[in-house]
Amino acid sequence: MDKHALQIAFDARRETILSDWIRLLTFPSVSVDPAHAGDCRACAEWLRNRFVNLGFTAELLETARAHPVVFAERRGAPGAPTLLLYGHYDVQPADPLDQWLSPPFAPQWRGNRLYARGANDDKGQLSGVITAIQTLIQSNALRATIKIVIEGNEECSDTHVITMLAQHRERLRADILLVCDTNRSENGAPAITMGLRGLIHLTAVLRGPSHDLHSGVHGGRVPNPATGLAQMVASLHAPDGRIAVTGFYDGVQPPDDTERALANATANDPAAFERENGVPPVGGERAFTPNERTAFRPAIDVNGFHSGYGGAGSKTIIPSEATVKLSARLVPGQDPARMLEAIIKHLQAHIPDGLKMEITERVIGGPAIKLDLHSSLVKQACAALSAMGEATPVFIWEGASIPILSKLPALACAEPLLVGFGVDADRIHAPNESYSLDQFLENYLFAGLFIGALGGCSQDASV
Amino acid sequence: MDKHALQIAFDARRETILSDWIRLLTFPSVSVDPAHAGDCRACAEWLRNRFVNLGFTAELLETARAHPVVFAERRGAPGAPTLLLYGHYDVQPADPLDQWLSPPFAPQWRGNRLYARGANDDKGQLSGVITAIQTLIQSNALRATIKIVIEGNEECSDTHVITMLAQHRERLRADILLVCDTNRSENGAPAITMGLRGLIHLTAVLRGPSHDLHSGVHGGRVPNPATGLAQMVASLHAPDGRIAVTGFYDGVQPPDDTERALANATANDPAAFERENGVPPVGGERAFTPNERTAFRPAIDVNGFHSGYGGAGSKTIIPSEATVKLSARLVPGQDPARMLEAIIKHLQAHIPDGLKMEITERVIGGPAIKLDLHSSLVKQACAALSAMGEATPVFIWEGASIPILSKLPALACAEPLLVGFGVDADRIHAPNESYSLDQFLENYLFAGLFIGALGGCSQDASV
Repeated sequence: MDKHALQIAFDARRETILSDWIRLLTFPSVSVDPAHAGDCRACAEWLRNRFVNLGFTAELLETARAHPVVFAERRGAPGAPTLLLYGHYDVQPADPLDQWLSPPFAPQWRGNRLYARGANDDKGQLSGVITAIQTLIQSNALRATIKIVIEGNEECSDTHVITMLAQHRERLRADILLVCDTNRSENGAPAITMGLRGLIHLTAVLRGPSHDLHSGVHGGRVPNPATGLAQMVASLHAPDGRIAVTGFYDGVQPPDDTERALANATANDPAAFERENGVPPVGGERAFTPNERTAFRPAIDVNGFHSGYGGAGSKTIIPSEATVKLSARLVPGQDPARMLEAIIKHLQAHIPDGLKMEITERVIGGPAIKLDLHSSLVKQACAALSAMGEATPVFIWEGASIPILSKLPALACAEPLLVGFGVDADRIHAPNESYSLDQFLENYLFAGLFIGALGGCSQDASV
Repeated sequence: MDKHALQIAFDARRETILSDWIRLLTFPSVSVDPAHAGDCRACAEWLRNRFVNLGFTAELLETARAHPVVFAERRGAPGAPTLLLYGHYDVQPADPLDQWLSPPFAPQWRGNRLYARGANDDKGQLSGVITAIQTLIQSNALRATIKIVIEGNEECSDTHVITMLAQHRERLRADILLVCDTNRSENGAPAITMGLRGLIHLTAVLRGPSHDLHSGVHGGRVPNPATGLAQMVASLHAPDGRIAVTGFYDGVQPPDDTERALANATANDPAAFERENGVPPVGGERAFTPNERTAFRPAIDVNGFHSGYGGAGSKTIIPSEATVKLSARLVPGQDPARMLEAIIKHLQAHIPDGLKMEITERVIGGPAIKLDLHSSLVKQACAALSAMGEATPVFIWEGASIPILSKLPALACAEPLLVGFGVDADRIHAPNESYSLDQFLENYLFAGLFIGALGGCSQDASV
């Protein structure tokens, strides 16, 4: 089907398509909150039934310590390639609730945009792709075998999901792993995401006095855990913005000239960046551009730092302890477990005299992933994006992480392809998340053009 | 009256004395919390009535922006010296409440100790002295004129109190200013406090993004306020523990050999220090002993540091802001206003690119004070301490601050004398504050012996 045919099919079923999207958004499938476990299951069951109605065999894959995974499969023409679609039906918590202009799970149109938690991430993008598959089936234009994995733990921790999926690896086998959970480039062009950073995080508690001490009686002789932890955190970076942890850059390859040029081609205007985020993009390593820093360089961030008195006025104490939550984004060449140990070793080496550190939490999200610029799959995706009549597609390397993608491609023996249409204005993870009808249509058209072409005479069916 | 007579008088009225102390402790006179303004006033009124019942003229001195000050006066024998007793009826906040074994304002005896907020600081020490004055009156053994100032803003900011008291300077005029809000030496000997450090504090907010940002999308290019503030705090000290703020030591005199010897004579065993406080006294300047550091050297401490996520698990954000509360203890030669500006200037010079600092609070408690080792008043105090039959009294320099003492001696034209019986185990400012009956008796006996001797034939009435 070409763009025109896909558009006509959309318009013919427009009301049903949009009401299916809205229905999916009404499930408060907040995976991190045990109170919403039933909502997560109901959402998964609704999706399973939808796939059954489309002619798929579909089921819920269960594991004791995670929400169910929707798995669906539809055999295509002999010899046609197999596409595995990955998405997630769980959403971030909606708080702070009082900042929403309409209830997060009662979707509301305001102009061209639909407002709801998950409107983009990932229910909106996913619905656009599912709609395309439905259109291809109903138009008798789908040759590829389609497998679908929609999990419910992407927004919390999906280590149990990947362990469970490993037991089904034969059923997951595919040629292409399509992920519809990424963004356009920051300057607005349609984008193929060529890399994602990995993630590790930890919580460290630095303990000093057994109780808060009087800062007058003891100030100057008792080691202060808040001061000490600040010194330890400060030691993580050199004055030029480089990470000062020994061995942290071992194995990290600088981007080649092509990658640098492509990453910088999508650079946003610093003034526009500051308008959107309230701060200029001047943090991190001086030796790299802002885009290069998030695309190709690791980062360590303080996510939280808490110690002592935080109320009004003053309380002149030496706090008994200080806590920091640190996360690191990793790039190819960095082993997550080794990097986590390197950070902890660095912190240990910088503990001031008299204080004691305990690591109360250590989490390995996953390593970075990086795709091949020269793959034929990338060419096919470019062809589909071009056929949409959009601006020339660009390549981006995202600073964020989709931890399961560090394992799923190997499990399915599939080459990953990440094409999404999110923009900053969608405010995913924040109050008043939204997604526009135009963006939904882009997911639909891209998936329709790309998947519809799979197994066709002009395509390389072997991928 | 000698020690024996004072002891007999105490035993005769023991139940009444202890119930007066306990009654004073039941007022939740938390000066920093506006919700307790009524409790502060009720406490002041109870004290005023107590002095009226003892034959004093007594009143509440009012000022719009502070809790009332209890002022009481009783004329003594012609020619006898005048003693001005200073104390405070306000207490520190009781939080964290869940760490108290009994409610902070429902005093409870456990063994020899009475547990309550203010049990020592200052209601306990003050009650011991008031009891002594009462005994001297009732025994017809008081020759000195007694003036009493008990304020309700010691634990917050008493700049308004001192401004108001300046209007009453004629009524405050005295020969001796007795303060009963200090400690024994750390090795347990009774002590005369020869110096107190000054105090300044501030709250600084470091602002970055307009809202919390995704640490994956932006980590490495957005300046992180929590990381930045940690770097700014770390920059306040050099690796050898010295304060790195330019000009901070200008005018600071090192202690002379006598002062050093006296300060170190009361040094506590480091192991005992660690048992009591959970941490060894290894913080601060390497070039000075722990006692010298709190006695003669300034200190900067973090009282609180808060930024970003502090709950269970993780939230991988770049926080939009970070807040630090800093206090500095000053020594003679340091001007508080200049030191506050020096710290702020230092912080400003260390703000990382892209972030903005606002100083939301700046408070000048007062400068340090230092008394004269060779004064005849000190000899009289030593005589009273010796008459208690205690160990030889020692001289200490306290690291803590009593801001009003930087102004009150000049206002009253009086020579200050600081003798108190607090010990670390009292845990003032912390949960489960307590004071022992033995300590209460020490305040009583010292005050009885010292005040009882004023104006006697063996005393130098002119002081």
